[in-house]
Amino acid sequence: MIKRQETQMKNIDVRSDTVTHPTKRMYEAMFNAQIGDDVYYEDDTVNKLEKMAAELVGMEAALFVPTGTMGNQILVMAHCQRGQEIIIGIDHHVAEDEVAGCAVLAGVQTRTLPTKDGYMDLQDIENSIRKDIYDWIPETGLICLENSMQGRALSLEYMAKVRELGNKYKIPVHLDGARMFNACTALKCSPREMSQYVDSLNFCLSKGLCAPIGSMICGSKKLIQKARRLRKLLGGGMRQVGIIAAAGIIAIQEMIPQLEDDHRIARILAEELSLIPEVDVKFEALSTNMVFWQFRDQKARNLVNFQQYLARKNIKISLPWEPKYWFRFVVHHYIREQQVQLIVDAIKSYVAQSEDRIQASL
Amino acid sequence: MIKRQETQMKNIDVRSDTVTHPTKRMYEAMFNAQIGDDVYYEDDTVNKLEKMAAELVGMEAALFVPTGTMGNQILVMAHCQRGQEIIIGIDHHVAEDEVAGCAVLAGVQTRTLPTKDGYMDLQDIENSIRKDIYDWIPETGLICLENSMQGRALSLEYMAKVRELGNKYKIPVHLDGARMFNACTALKCSPREMSQYVDSLNFCLSKGLCAPIGSMICGSKKLIQKARRLRKLLGGGMRQVGIIAAAGIIAIQEMIPQLEDDHRIARILAEELSLIPEVDVKFEALSTNMVFWQFRDQKARNLVNFQQYLARKNIKISLPWEPKYWFRFVVHHYIREQQVQLIVDAIKSYVAQSEDRIQASL
Amino acid sequence: MIKRQETQMKNIDVRSDTVTHPTKRMYEAMFNAQIGDDVYYEDDTVNKLEKMAAELVGMEAALFVPTGTMGNQILVMAHCQRGQEIIIGIDHHVAEDEVAGCAVLAGVQTRTLPTKDGYMDLQDIENSIRKDIYDWIPETGLICLENSMQGRALSLEYMAKVRELGNKYKIPVHLDGARMFNACTALKCSPREMSQYVDSLNFCLSKGLCAPIGSMICGSKKLIQKARRLRKLLGGGMRQVGIIAAAGIIAIQEMIPQLEDDHRIARILAEELSLIPEVDVKFEALSTNMVFWQFRDQKARNLVNFQQYLARKNIKISLPWEPKYWFRFVVHHYIREQQVQLIVDAIKSYVAQSEDRIQASL
Amino acid sequence: MIKRQETQMKNIDVRSDTVTHPTKRMYEAMFNAQIGDDVYYEDDTVNKLEKMAAELVGMEAALFVPTGTMGNQILVMAHCQRGQEIIIGIDHHVAEDEVAGCAVLAGVQTRTLPTKDGYMDLQDIENSIRKDIYDWIPETGLICLENSMQGRALSLEYMAKVRELGNKYKIPVHLDGARMFNACTALKCSPREMSQYVDSLNFCLSKGLCAPIGSMICGSKKLIQKARRLRKLLGGGMRQVGIIAAAGIIAIQEMIPQLEDDHRIARILAEELSLIPEVDVKFEALSTNMVFWQFRDQKARNLVNFQQYLARKNIKISLPWEPKYWFRFVVHHYIREQQVQLIVDAIKSYVAQSEDRIQASL
Repeated sequence: MIKRQETQMKNIDVRSDTVTHPTKRMYEAMFNAQIGDDVYYEDDTVNKLEKMAAELVGMEAALFVPTGTMGNQILVMAHCQRGQEIIIGIDHHVAEDEVAGCAVLAGVQTRTLPTKDGYMDLQDIENSIRKDIYDWIPETGLICLENSMQGRALSLEYMAKVRELGNKYKIPVHLDGARMFNACTALKCSPREMSQYVDSLNFCLSKGLCAPIGSMICGSKKLIQKARRLRKLLGGGMRQVGIIAAAGIIAIQEMIPQLEDDHRIARILAEELSLIPEVDVKFEALSTNMVFWQFRDQKARNLVNFQQYLARKNIKISLPWEPKYWFRFVVHHYIREQQVQLIVDAIKSYVAQSEDRIQASL
Repeated sequence: MIKRQETQMKNIDVRSDTVTHPTKRMYEAMFNAQIGDDVYYEDDTVNKLEKMAAELVGMEAALFVPTGTMGNQILVMAHCQRGQEIIIGIDHHVAEDEVAGCAVLAGVQTRTLPTKDGYMDLQDIENSIRKDIYDWIPETGLICLENSMQGRALSLEYMAKVRELGNKYKIPVHLDGARMFNACTALKCSPREMSQYVDSLNFCLSKGLCAPIGSMICGSKKLIQKARRLRKLLGGGMRQVGIIAAAGIIAIQEMIPQLEDDHRIARILAEELSLIPEVDVKFEALSTNMVFWQFRDQKARNLVNFQQYLARKNIKISLPWEPKYWFRFVVHHYIREQQVQLIVDAIKSYVAQSEDRIQASL
Repeated sequence: MIKRQETQMKNIDVRSDTVTHPTKRMYEAMFNAQIGDDVYYEDDTVNKLEKMAAELVGMEAALFVPTGTMGNQILVMAHCQRGQEIIIGIDHHVAEDEVAGCAVLAGVQTRTLPTKDGYMDLQDIENSIRKDIYDWIPETGLICLENSMQGRALSLEYMAKVRELGNKYKIPVHLDGARMFNACTALKCSPREMSQYVDSLNFCLSKGLCAPIGSMICGSKKLIQKARRLRKLLGGGMRQVGIIAAAGIIAIQEMIPQLEDDHRIARILAEELSLIPEVDVKFEALSTNMVFWQFRDQKARNLVNFQQYLARKNIKISLPWEPKYWFRFVVHHYIREQQVQLIVDAIKSYVAQSEDRIQASL
Repeated sequence: MIKRQETQMKNIDVRSDTVTHPTKRMYEAMFNAQIGDDVYYEDDTVNKLEKMAAELVGMEAALFVPTGTMGNQILVMAHCQRGQEIIIGIDHHVAEDEVAGCAVLAGVQTRTLPTKDGYMDLQDIENSIRKDIYDWIPETGLICLENSMQGRALSLEYMAKVRELGNKYKIPVHLDGARMFNACTALKCSPREMSQYVDSLNFCLSKGLCAPIGSMICGSKKLIQKARRLRKLLGGGMRQVGIIAAAGIIAIQEMIPQLEDDHRIARILAEELSLIPEVDVKFEALSTNMVFWQFRDQKARNLVNFQQYLARKNIKISLPWEPKYWFRFVVHHYIREQQVQLIVDAIKSYVAQSEDRIQASL
C-alpha cells in the first residue's frame, strides 16, 4: 500500500536549499507520529520538538511556526511596540524578502543599514540607536542579525560586540538563523555558543535540514508565550502539526551533522567551477553551502539562454538578482559529487557551444 | 518499516471537530504525494488540490492556506483597503475568534451586528452600509457571512438576499465557510449552489473533513493572486506543501459525502441526551454536527467536576463559554454510535451519582 | 488697524454647532496671548489651558489637540495595545465618524453594540467583555461612552454602572465628551461629577463653546504623557498654539455657563416647530441643544427642495442621514430667539407654499 | 482693547526657526479673516490659501494641514499601498523625526539609505528600487527627498536625476519641503523650478515663514482629494481654520522674499563665529539659515554648562545631537545683526571665562 521507495529528487536543483525533499527517515517519522490538536497544546510530537529545539539553542522555550517569515515577524512583533524602530541590514531577509511585514504587521519602522560582506558596521549600529527620546523620535526596539548571511558565516566576535551594544542600550537582539546551523558548522561552534549573543532566534527545519515545512522560534518563556498568541493572529495556529513536526525532529537529530558535507561539496563545486576559464568564483563569500560565481563576460551573455540550456539538462538555476550580478548555486542534501560533476560539465559544454557560436558568427 | 495500522483516536473527544485525525487513506496519500517547492508554484499536489477546490465551489481560483484564520484574514485584506469597514455578525468567527486580526492586519474596522439564530437582520445590514461617504465616514468594504454558523445551516434564501444587498451597493460578500460542507449537507445543496452568492470563501480541510492541516480560499483569479502575496506577508508561504495537501485531496473526495453520517449521529446523540430528565437539548440549533444542551439546573451544578468526571472516562468536553450557557458537543468521524452510547451512559451515571450525593447531603 | 467689530454669523446655520465663530472676547484673547513653541512645552497659554482643563474635570493632566477626532483616537491608542478590542455603541462618533481610525491607527477592533436612546444595554456590555482569554480571543481594552449622545444627556446612574463593569473586569472607560458640558448642563451636574466615572475623556472647545479650533484630552499624568507622544505621531504637535488656546480659555471660562441658554432656545425651537401641524418633533430626544423633527409625510416630500428653499432665506440645514429619517437642528450661540422665529416662519411658509402646489396639482 | 503692540521675541532663540512668532501683519490678518467651517469646505480664507499655495508651486491642488509631520505622513499614505516600501535618506525628517509614522500609519516600510552632505547616492537609489516583484518582495511605492536638508540646498540637477529614476521605474517622488523656500532662495530658483521634479510636496508656513501653525501639501487633484480624507483620519480636519490660514497667506506673500535676509545674517553669524579661535565652523554646510559649528576641543568641554551660561544671557541653544557633534544655530526673522553680535559676544566671554577657569585649575 505504501509504495514510496526513495525520496531522490528528479532534478539537479541549485536554486535554493528550500527545494529539498524530506528524507526516507522523515517519511517514516511523519507516518508514525503521535498527533493531537496543537491549538490545545495536545500534540505530543510538537511538544517534543519544541522542547528539543529550546534545549538545542539553550533557551527557555520554543515554538513551531509554518515558515521562517512568520517566525521572524512574530518575534519582531513580540519584542517591539507599535511605533518603535528596528536596526537591520538593508539586504537582510527580514527587510528585503518579507513583503514589508515589519511595517504592516508590527507597525515597526526599519532603519536599514548598509552591509559589507554581510556585516553591518558596528559604529553605524551604535549611531543608529536612538538615544534622546523626544516626542518625535521612535525608540529603537530591536537589533536584527542574520547568520549565515547570504552564504557567509558571520563571526562570533561580531555577534558578541552587537550583544554588547544591545546590553549597553538595553535593546534586545534577534537572530534570523534560518541557516544558523550552516553558520555554526562553518564556525565550528555549537548552536548555544552562537545563541548566547541573542535574545531570540528563528531557525528553519526546511532548507538544508530537509524537513518539508516549518521553523522554530526560540526565546524566553515570556516571549514565546506572547509569540504563541501572535502566531494565532497571523493564522499560524495549525491543528495536527505532529505530522510535520515529526520530520522536524529528524531534521534536528540527523541532518545538522550532515551540513558539513554540504559545505565540503560546495567547496568542490566552487573549485571545479573556478577551473573553467570563463568563470569567476567569489571565494571570499564561500563559507557554507552557497557558491557565488559569474561569467567573466557576464554582461555580454544572454543569461536566460544559459538558464534554459541547463534546464534542458534537468539543472535548475536562478538568475542573478539585480543589482547583484552573481549566480548563487546552493548545495544541499540532494546535490552530491555526482551532481556537481553534471553541473560543471553542463556549464563547460554551454561555454564551448556558445564559443562555437561566437566563432561561427564572426 | 511503516507500522501505522489504524488512525483511531484514543479518547472520545467532542470538544470540536478540529481534533480529528487523518484517515488511513489520507496517510497513504500523504506518503505517496508528488511534492515540490510551493513558493515556486512547483508542488503538483498543491496545484491539483487548488484546481479541485476551485472547481468544487465553481470559482476561478483557489489557494491553500495553513489555517482558516489565515484564509479569512487574507480575504479581508484582499477585498478591503485600509480604513474601510466590514459588516459582520458579532459572534462570527472572524470577529470573535481571530485576535482582532481585521484591525491589526487589514486596518479594517468591524461593524459588528447582533445575530439571532446565527442570522444578522437584513434590514440591519442594509442600514449599516455606509451610503454618504463624507470625509469622516469609512467606506463599507465587505459583508461577511458564516455558514454553518455555530451548528446551524443558514438558508440559501438568506444568502441570496445578502447577495442582493451586496449587488445593490456594490459591496463584495465573503463566506467564512469553515464548515460550509456541513451546511450544504444539511441544506441538501451543492457547494456551488451556496458559493454562487458570495465573491470569496474559505473552507477547512481539517475539522469534519479530517485533514490534519489546511484550508482553501477561493475567488476570482485576480483576488487569489492578491491573496497569494498576502499569504507570503502573513508567513503562510510554505514549501513542500504537497505532503499535507495530499490529505486535503482525500478530504474533498472522500469525506464530504460522509458528513451526512456525522449529522445523523449528532441527531442520535441529541435524542439520547434529551431522554435524560435532567437535560435540556437545544433542538432548534441542531442542523449539522453540533449538539447544544444544558442541565436544567445548570447554574447550581459544578461543571468543572462534571468535566473531570467525564475526563476520567476518556471523554473530553469543553465547558460552556460565558455568556453562553450551553454545552457544545461536536460530532465527527471518530464519534460513532458506540461512542454516543458511552457519552450518554457517562452523563447518566454522573447525574445518578450526583443525585445520590445530593440525597446524602440532605 | 484691527477693524473687526463683531463676530456675528451671516447665516442662520443649524447644521451643527461646529460652525460657531469665536466671540469678540476670544478674538481679544487670541490677539493678546503669550505664545511659545508648544512642542518644547514653552507656550504659556497652552500650559495654562491644559492646567485649567485638568482642574475642570478633576483629572491629573490634560493636553490640547487640534480636533476631537484626534483626541479620541489618541486615547484609544494610549489605552489599548494593538490587537485588543473596544466596546462601543454602533452609532457613537468614534465608531461611526472617525474613518475607521481605531483599526488603522490603533490596530484595535471595534465591538459595536446596538444603542437605544443613546444607551448601550448594560448586560450587552458585560456579555461583550472577553473573559476567557484563549490565544484566539482579543482582550477587551476599553469601553467607550459618549455623552451627550446625539443630543441626549445620558444619566450619571448609567455611567456609574458602566464604571462598575469597568472596575469588575479591570477595563478602563473612556468618555467622548465632545459635548459633555451640554450633558452636564442638562443633568445639572458638575463636570467632575461626570468625569469621576471614566479614566479619560475628550471635550471640544469648539462646537457649543465657540472656540475656532481645538479639543482637550484629560486623564492620568501617565496617560497624557503617552498621549503627547501619540499626538506627535498623528501630526498634531503644533507650534505657537497659544493663539488658539487663548480662545479655549475663554471657551471654558465664559461659554460653559451659557450652554443653558442654548438648551432653553432649543426647547423654544422644538415647541414652535411642534405647533406646525405638518411637523412631528422627537421630544424624547430633546435634552440639550439638538432638536430632532420630521415632516409627518416626510417620505413623500422632496427634502432637497426644502433645503434649497431655506438656503435662499439664508438658513442652512442638513438633510436627514440615512437610515435616520429625522432632521437635526442644532442650536448654538448664534441662534437666538430672533433666529428661531425666522426658521419657524420659513418652514411655515414652505409648508404653505408646497400645500398650494399640491392643491394646484390636483 | 487690542493692546498688542509688537511681536518681538524676548529671547534670542537659535534652537530652531520653529520658535518664530507671527508678525504684526499676520496678527492683523488673523483678526480680520473671513472664516467658516473648513470641514464643510466653507472657510474662504483657507480656500484662498490653498489656491495660492497650489499656484505658487505649480500644482493642481493644495491642502492646509496642522503640521509638516501630518503633511508628510498623509502623502506617504496617499501615494502608497499598505505593504509597499519607500526609499528615503536615513537622516531625513520623515524617517528620523516622525515617530515611525510610515510604519504605524501607512504600513509602509522605510528603506533608509545613507546620505552624504544631504544627498542619497543616485546609484544607491536605483539599486534600492525593487525590480523583480516576487510574492515576497515589497513594491517600491515612493522616493522621498528633503530640501533644504539640514541647512543645505540640494541641487536641482540632483532632483532632476531622481525624477528621471522615478520616471524610469514609474515611482512617484515626494519632497519634504518644510524649508523648500530656503532652498529655492539659496539656489536662486522659483518654487516651480523645484516642484517640477516631484509629484507631491509639503511646505511649512511656520518655521522661517513665521506663521504660528500650519503646512501646505500640494499635488494632483486626485492626490489631494485622497489627502483630505486621510487628514480627517489623522484628526487634522479642523473647523474655523481661516484664523490661522490668514497668517499663512501673509507668510507666502511677505515672508518668502525675506528669507534671503535670514541667509545673509546666517553667513554673518558663521563668519563672526569662525573668528573665535576656539571655534570651528562647518562652512560647507552653510547655504541657507543654519550655521553648524563646534568647539575645537568640544569633547573636553561641558556643553551643558555652556548652554546654561548662554541661557542666563537669554540666548537659547540646542545641544548637539548624538551622533552628530555640531551645534546647529538657526537664523530666522527674529535674529538680526544685533542678536548675532550678542550671541558671538556671549560665546567669546564664555570661552574667556572657561579659559580662566582652566588656567585657575592648573
